[in-house]
Amino acid sequence: MAVSTKPARGMRDFLPADVRRRQYVIGVVSSVFEGYGFEPLETPSVENIETLTGKYGEEGDRLIFKILKRGEGASTGEADLALRYDLTVPMSRVVAEYRAALPKFFKRFQIQPVWRADRPQKGRFREFYQCDVDATGSTSMTVEAEQLAAAADVLTRLGFTAFTIRLNHRQLLAAILDAAGIGADLHGTALIALDKADKIGRDAVVTEMGERGVAPDSARALVDLLFGLEGRDNTTTLDTLAAFVGAHEGGTRAIAQLREILALTAGLSAGPFVRIDATLARGLGYYTGAIFEIAVADLAGSLGGGGRYDDLVGMFLGQKVPACGISLGLERILVVMAERGMFPASVERAPAAVLVANFDGEAQADTLALAAELRRGADGTTLAVEVYPDVDKLGKQFKYAAERGIPFVAVSGAQERASGQVTVKTLADGSQMAVPRADVAGHIVTRMGHSRG
Amino acid sequence: MAVSTKPARGMRDFLPADVRRRQYVIGVVSSVFEGYGFEPLETPSVENIETLTGKYGEEGDRLIFKILKRGEGASTGEADLALRYDLTVPMSRVVAEYRAALPKFFKRFQIQPVWRADRPQKGRFREFYQCDVDATGSTSMTVEAEQLAAAADVLTRLGFTAFTIRLNHRQLLAAILDAAGIGADLHGTALIALDKADKIGRDAVVTEMGERGVAPDSARALVDLLFGLEGRDNTTTLDTLAAFVGAHEGGTRAIAQLREILALTAGLSAGPFVRIDATLARGLGYYTGAIFEIAVADLAGSLGGGGRYDDLVGMFLGQKVPACGISLGLERILVVMAERGMFPASVERAPAAVLVANFDGEAQADTLALAAELRRGADGTTLAVEVYPDVDKLGKQFKYAAERGIPFVAVSGAQERASGQVTVKTLADGSQMAVPRADVAGHIVTRMGHSRG
Repeated sequence: MAVSTKPARGMRDFLPADVRRRQYVIGVVSSVFEGYGFEPLETPSVENIETLTGKYGEEGDRLIFKILKRGEGASTGEADLALRYDLTVPMSRVVAEYRAALPKFFKRFQIQPVWRADRPQKGRFREFYQCDVDATGSTSMTVEAEQLAAAADVLTRLGFTAFTIRLNHRQLLAAILDAAGIGADLHGTALIALDKADKIGRDAVVTEMGERGVAPDSARALVDLLFGLEGRDNTTTLDTLAAFVGAHEGGTRAIAQLREILALTAGLSAGPFVRIDATLARGLGYYTGAIFEIAVADLAGSLGGGGRYDDLVGMFLGQKVPACGISLGLERILVVMAERGMFPASVERAPAAVLVANFDGEAQADTLALAAELRRGADGTTLAVEVYPDVDKLGKQFKYAAERGIPFVAVSGAQERASGQVTVKTLADGSQMAVPRADVAGHIVTRMGHSRG
Repeated sequence: MAVSTKPARGMRDFLPADVRRRQYVIGVVSSVFEGYGFEPLETPSVENIETLTGKYGEEGDRLIFKILKRGEGASTGEADLALRYDLTVPMSRVVAEYRAALPKFFKRFQIQPVWRADRPQKGRFREFYQCDVDATGSTSMTVEAEQLAAAADVLTRLGFTAFTIRLNHRQLLAAILDAAGIGADLHGTALIALDKADKIGRDAVVTEMGERGVAPDSARALVDLLFGLEGRDNTTTLDTLAAFVGAHEGGTRAIAQLREILALTAGLSAGPFVRIDATLARGLGYYTGAIFEIAVADLAGSLGGGGRYDDLVGMFLGQKVPACGISLGLERILVVMAERGMFPASVERAPAAVLVANFDGEAQADTLALAAELRRGADGTTLAVEVYPDVDKLGKQFKYAAERGIPFVAVSGAQERASGQVTVKTLADGSQMAVPRADVAGHIVTRMGHSRG
């Protein structure tokens, strides 16, 4: 039986057009965060298995890809290594291992694949990239403010305009639940129900809370409060919530922090996009402070989210390391940008600007030399230049260029060489033009500029 | 017992300075090859195990990292997946799977990690990057010529000057061995001995060949021929070899192809670096035509190599696909460049150009706004700007900037804000200067330009 040539289940091959799109988004993300002083980190794909197990809950442990022992251990069927499951545990390991070498305020971004043995579904893969940006070492709200600004910069640079940065606070949520008369033991249950509001509607949220033991009055008060705030401005929202939680210590502190984040971001790129949203819960249990999520108009789900989690990064260090981070949904951003045609022409481009035709077997050295000249480009713009590798009929080479989307073909035969010219064929309109050889690159750069505009 | 926070055995963490260096080299390689019309390809880290087994010989099979079955199969200790071992097998799979979508002449580069359960040694890791550039679909020597030119461009752009591209041909080697009277059954043995000449010397090569069954006269004739060519120019070398192999069909064809490659590269960037070297054998058995290897003065081993292999890429397709490729030794290039201090200042840089000091708790919104202004840069140069996250004493912040290698600190207190100025401290000389706020970015861009020059 022939071996299948498909990628393994839940895995993807990225053909050139895919890679260019991925690298473009990764480039924008990196460049923006580097502008804020974040630094790139990369950790191995493979970790010792004990580094990962027990960190992601029972369900997570089951989804870890485990690597078989080699050598003498192979026959036992035991695993000693495992594939990276997320980027937070490796970062925490790095923070512990290199604490002497790393700065007090370690700000890193990490854009690498992770692997999960999930059941593959549409848009859900077993190998996918995560893009995590975290700042450790400070409890200051300037950290949150700068991360929101950087996230807004990334989305704006990628061409998103109608997005919202939903902002809430874990301790505010707890205070609201307390004030609504929901006991701490039911907070988790209530938040899970609340998190479904977008999907199931507020009445169903009240019903579900009731089924799970929340007093009906409390559930109703909570839902009325939170959904009554829809469309209100941030100040009104916070004032209303402050009145609701009263003197609750955690709630008061949370509101003060949210007010500070709003004040700090007001003059930054994030300012116009931040919206206090007390219904935002975020699933992960490890958040301890502000939480945020990026919503885009007409799009279910989010393009990223994060928050403050002061108790996690120190897991290997045995001491608290304050941290705040944002995880951008790289795979989702890519899907949305492709669906909406948001990639610039420089990304959705042909593999080359020019194909140099190769039809005179005796002059192939000159054909390659012409290609080398054209690669140098003009006016500071270099050109990607492909040479048709085989000596063949011109018509076939024009057809090849057209199929590849290469816009120009440079033809240099005996006549052109004698006159110091090159015939440039523009495939879009089929026109041909004799251009002095030294001007060909400039001619193409100019015409490409036009065709872009 | 505390879990170790070291990376798994044979694996590496790349801290920010490492990542910047790696990305710089990868960027140069990608940009040069894209200039030649090569396109990026990425395949999954994980392949079905049957895609990989049996492709790398018995030894290779043992070094494949195998992934345990999940779910019900977990308890059996069986593996159904494995980590990528090289980039050639995945490319061959891609060529078969997407043959309808890929161009006739598929030119791809792939820069991704591979995993091998080798015994870790100095400079030898279990996860390392390969950088493969291959062109499929053509048997023309223009392919070899352009790959050599692109490789020369890469090395030149990276700052290497004293390198040689050793060029030989598998069929020429066979013809020489035939002409020396070494039977085809001993070719492999003879080549293995020959490959050690650099390390053990020519006399030891003759001895070893003798021990392995090669007639002493043949071994001596071979070694005298090959090492007698040292220092000769390419034409003399090829003429001598042509005389030695006489009318040998494969040898004659090989010499014609080498002459063609020399002619095609003569006017290209590779021209001055190409040296016919009939002692070059290259270990891998799958080469069928020209072979090449990049040697650098004062450096044992090579920075890359490759050749034509017309019988391999079609492995999943059941038909021949001509191919020629070069594999750059990315990890080795990185080591050599680090040892020789070859990275430009733009790579060996601080995480930010400026630290914006944060010492007035009431003015933090303005501190962040100043950082945002500075990030926009000046004269088309953007600046990486870090904000000290906590409100703290200025002296501590200067010290932090110095430790991080950040060259400038921008200080904006009540006095500065009142006068519309910012105090810019240059850490190199400790000087301070009041600069109009709108001019600070320009001031820093200019001074950085100076300090670079």
